[in-house]
Parts: sequence; C-alpha cells; structure tokens
Amino acid sequence: MHDDEQAIRQLVDTWMAATKAGDAKAVLELMADDVVFLVPGAPPFGKARFAEAATARAGAETTFEGTSEIQEIQVFGDWAFMRTQLTVATAQPGKPAATRAGTTLSILVKRDGKWLLARDANLLAPVAQAAGSS
Amino acid sequence: MHDDEQAIRQLVDTWMAATKAGDAKAVLELMADDVVFLVPGAPPFGKARFAEAATARAGAETTFEGTSEIQEIQVFGDWAFMRTQLTVATAQPGKPAATRAGTTLSILVKRDGKWLLARDANLLAPVAQAAGSS
Repeated sequence: MHDDEQAIRQLVDTWMAATKAGDAKAVLELMADDVVFLVPGAPPFGKARFAEAATARAGAETTFEGTSEIQEIQVFGDWAFMRTQLTVATAQPGKPAATRAGTTLSILVKRDGKWLLARDANLLAPVAQAAGSS
Repeated sequence: MHDDEQAIRQLVDTWMAATKAGDAKAVLELMADDVVFLVPGAPPFGKARFAEAATARAGAETTFEGTSEIQEIQVFGDWAFMRTQLTVATAQPGKPAATRAGTTLSILVKRDGKWLLARDANLLAPVAQAAGSS
C-alpha cells in the first residue's frame, strides 16, 4: 500500500481512538488550522467551533463509540480525498444513546510531512432507535 | 483568474442552466462515468441512478430554480475540489414548492481537457416553508 494512503488510514484510526478517549487535544492536532467542516442544515464551521463542541461533550460526560470504513482514498501529491462510511453512537448519563450513520467526503493536505484533515463533509443522519425511547 | 478555475465555474453555470431547462442529457455530460454522489441518509449512488431520477423529475413536470454560490475552488493539476452554498427550489403541478439549501463539497477531474464532476457531497436540508403548507 502507498505510504501516503497508509498514513491517512492511520490518521483515521488515531482520530477515532482519540475521540473515543475524549482526547480533544489529540483530535485537534489531526486537522489543519484552516479546516472547514460541512454538515447538513448548518453553516460551515472551523477548528475553534470544533474545539468548543468537543469541550462541551467532555463536560457532559459524553461517551462515544464509532466505526469508520474507508471506501476510497486517492492521493495527488500533497493533497488527497477520502470517502468513508461512518457510524457514531454517543451517550450521556441519563439519556438514551443516539446513533448516526452515513458517508463522509474529506480533503486532506500533507504539511511538513504530516497528513491533516483540511475539508470535511459529514453526511451522517440519525439512525432509527428501538421503539419506546423518547 | 486561472483558466481551470474559470472552466469549473462555467461547469457550475452550465449544470444549473441545464437542470433548470430539464436537459438531463446535458447534465449527464458534465459528470465522469464513475461519479459518486453522496447525500445524507442514503447510500452513495452513481450516474445511472442520477439519470433515472432526472428522467422521473422530467416525467413529473418538475420545475427547478436554483442558485449556486461558489465559496472555494482549489486546483491540483487534473484534480480540483470545490465548495458551494446551494439553494434549490423544486415544484410539481398541484404540489407546494419545496426549497432545500446548504453546502456542497465536490471533487472534479480534468479528462481530455474537460472538467467533470467526479465526487459530490450534497448536504442540502429542507428550508422551513411558510406556515399553512402541508
């Protein structure tokens, strides 16, 4: 496997593990300072707002379980794009777990030899929960 | 402006005009044969399913109004990515119009000198309609 592709796969693994561990600082080190996040139904946002949300999740004792299946990586020099199928389950004390699943399309950039997330479109939608939850 | 960026802007203009005109054939010529479309809450799909949906819209006499505001284009040789803010209003005879708005993240590829849509993440979400519609 191409070294760059391998490095990008490692980035995804590190991202998921750091998120699960609640290590926001480690996640923030995996993205470019000028990263742009796109989600449905909201304006684009950047690294500062990502950090705020991660801090809020940690304060609310949110737990996280997720799986990311990489469906495509294409590398062009110091740029790459990636598609994944992502499933994320989050839970907070006293609340039912919420599961979201869907695809992502990301742009990555290699700076000083390190791959970073540069643009990220997250198309996750809620997955129907078992009947009876409220 | 860079020639490639200009050509990509022209692709967007042509796409919007052809969609408004109901000219599915012209739209299909703007995408790679191996294009992948990503939307929230559904699996990825390709050119054949895009064509089916376009034909169905034409059969249902769907009218289309849309605006696409390009927020970023970055070109790397024969590849590029683009972000837009897109608003689309569709209507069919006897039904209220439906408006969707949001961002897109697209990968484009230059083949035989022509830019084509290669990957497209469409994060549009329904825009609240005036009260009273059903």
